[in-house]
Amino acid sequence: MSDDYEELKELTKKTAKNLFGERMPEGVNAYEIWKSFDPELAKHLSMFYTGRLYGREVISQKQRELCAVAVLTVLHMPDELKAHCIAAMNVGANKEEVAEVIFQTTTYHGVPTMLEGLKVLKEVIETE
Amino acid sequence: MSDDYEELKELTKKTAKNLFGERMPEGVNAYEIWKSFDPELAKHLSMFYTGRLYGREVISQKQRELCAVAVLTVLHMPDELKAHCIAAMNVGANKEEVAEVIFQTTTYHGVPTMLEGLKVLKEVIETE
Amino acid sequence: MSDDYEELKELTKKTAKNLFGERMPEGVNAYEIWKSFDPELAKHLSMFYTGRLYGREVISQKQRELCAVAVLTVLHMPDELKAHCIAAMNVGANKEEVAEVIFQTTTYHGVPTMLEGLKVLKEVIETE
Amino acid sequence: MSDDYEELKELTKKTAKNLFGERMPEGVNAYEIWKSFDPELAKHLSMFYTGRLYGREVISQKQRELCAVAVLTVLHMPDELKAHCIAAMNVGANKEEVAEVIFQTTTYHGVPTMLEGLKVLKEVIETE
Amino acid sequence: MSDDYEELKELTKKTAKNLFGERMPEGVNAYEIWKSFDPELAKHLSMFYTGRLYGREVISQKQRELCAVAVLTVLHMPDELKAHCIAAMNVGANKEEVAEVIFQTTTYHGVPTMLEGLKVLKEVIETE
Amino acid sequence: MSDDYEELKELTKKTAKNLFGERMPEGVNAYEIWKSFDPELAKHLSMFYTGRLYGREVISQKQRELCAVAVLTVLHMPDELKAHCIAAMNVGANKEEVAEVIFQTTTYHGVPTMLEGLKVLKEVIETE
Repeated sequence: MSDDYEELKELTKKTAKNLFGERMPEGVNAYEIWKSFDPELAKHLSMFYTGRLYGREVISQKQRELCAVAVLTVLHMPDELKAHCIAAMNVGANKEEVAEVIFQTTTYHGVPTMLEGLKVLKEVIETE
Repeated sequence: MSDDYEELKELTKKTAKNLFGERMPEGVNAYEIWKSFDPELAKHLSMFYTGRLYGREVISQKQRELCAVAVLTVLHMPDELKAHCIAAMNVGANKEEVAEVIFQTTTYHGVPTMLEGLKVLKEVIETE
Repeated sequence: MSDDYEELKELTKKTAKNLFGERMPEGVNAYEIWKSFDPELAKHLSMFYTGRLYGREVISQKQRELCAVAVLTVLHMPDELKAHCIAAMNVGANKEEVAEVIFQTTTYHGVPTMLEGLKVLKEVIETE
Repeated sequence: MSDDYEELKELTKKTAKNLFGERMPEGVNAYEIWKSFDPELAKHLSMFYTGRLYGREVISQKQRELCAVAVLTVLHMPDELKAHCIAAMNVGANKEEVAEVIFQTTTYHGVPTMLEGLKVLKEVIETE
Repeated sequence: MSDDYEELKELTKKTAKNLFGERMPEGVNAYEIWKSFDPELAKHLSMFYTGRLYGREVISQKQRELCAVAVLTVLHMPDELKAHCIAAMNVGANKEEVAEVIFQTTTYHGVPTMLEGLKVLKEVIETE
Repeated sequence: MSDDYEELKELTKKTAKNLFGERMPEGVNAYEIWKSFDPELAKHLSMFYTGRLYGREVISQKQRELCAVAVLTVLHMPDELKAHCIAAMNVGANKEEVAEVIFQTTTYHGVPTMLEGLKVLKEVIETE
């Protein structure tokens, strides 16, 4: 991880593109919202979360995204969950693996949570 | 997945042993607590969650346990998190991978959550 | 509680019919969603939660459903809450009792939670 | 429900005694904590929650307390849960009914939650 | 704080008007919902929460509302959050201050939470 | 906000000292925990959250800390809440103001939450 500003900017862009492709899924474009309130802060939030954290390589991006799917399911964040179901499949997970991670959440957070998660995944798959 | 009762019992035992070794970590022995209230239900809870769900093979046990660590961190269940940090390492994750999954939770659930998770992992590592 | 597979299937059907009548409320038909991802798992989830757990008789179905209403209110699961408001009234609770259980949640989870719960109940009553 | 101040004070006392007996369980004596910060507000909080809300008679106190047990289990409030396990048994629930309500929470909030709830109940029963 | 019923009614009205102006924001008119279930309880809920609690003067109304914004952001209550974004600006906060309080929640509850909060604020500002 | 690395390091140190004095309260020294897992990441986490976010001046530090107290109360993070009760008083809030913010949480998250928050504050005040 580098303290060099330009390097971090590059890593942020590359990581975002790797996960979300050319366009962020509608409804979760955090950067645009942040920028409308504070452009300077928007830049730092983006470089910190996407560059510094998502850009790390201790685990694979597929592993990271499957964990994101699990966590966002139990947190009931459908828009973000949708984005990370897409990202998980962009970095190599298949739909059975994504579904499995969501099924598993019934153990930790019950049936309604798991069901909501599967509905989001179903929508993602059907609108592909 | 089988409807055969004896097969499911075997799968449950094998899965539990695979994840937690010979002994469940102290403080999370669900089966004993359940049994003290309702032995018949205890058996079915155990066979359903451990056998039917954890026994599945759509994702690897390492993958499953890293997701469990992420979810239990954001749910603030320190006893269960401890058990699944141990299980994750029992099925092949190293401590850097477990820590990475916990670090990542700051994105979805903030700093205090991530910090509590790391404290649990630290305790697990130090008492090994 | 029986280990006999056919018996459990019957209990599952009877319990579901008792709670939800001929048709599950729209938006919560868990079984259909599960089946679209994994028909075998769908069957086991349904038999476990509806048959093994909801089929128990330690408390009355009315008591069980009023607890479900209380819990689903504080968990902010409006679709599931709707289904269990209907189920509670199907098994003998009147609307004043269901409302009371929701009013009570302000003590444990505050005003916004209780208010969202009452809105769901109001919608259920008005579309009856 | 009355607007008469003295009547409400009486109802508050009677309801508290009915639920918790002569002494609040240690660790949950809300009134003492409130009073140490603001005696006037303490009085109003107590009369509102205990008198106005718990004093209502739309559902039975047993019904109300079983709902409280369910909700406090999923909210992970062990001290409050302990108090309401005791209250539920004070107003007529037996330990099998209290356990059943807690077992049921696995459907809505998963295994760790249900397990923590049973541990609290076990402790209550064993220290009776 | 007074035990005088008429005084409390006046304080309730004055506080509500101070925070929300002549009309409650659509979608959060708690009083109307409560009244449709229990008019007597509606009155007491309103006088307790708006009069007794919001009517207090230990902190400024601006301070109180900024805390409400922070809390409702992390609780994911968009309708209530909307009402309190409006209230915060009605009692003297500017939009930069409200946004700052929401940005800050990323520290305690992560990015998706903060992002949802900012979307609500953006909607409030744009429909002014 | 600056992109200059040294400036950000200075701002981080100054902000931390301003809030927590010479020593972080025991049990919440995030930096030490982070460092034990990943010194490079520890530095970036610290500079981002303490420097970039807490170092901002859109609202006063007192305002920021009172919001932190409110949020950490409803999130049930007693160790972090303790640290921010201390910080709030370090930057100019008195104990009545801190208590008020916690009392207010009963509106949004119920009595048990508010009670746990007041217990933490009481402990902070008594061990001063």
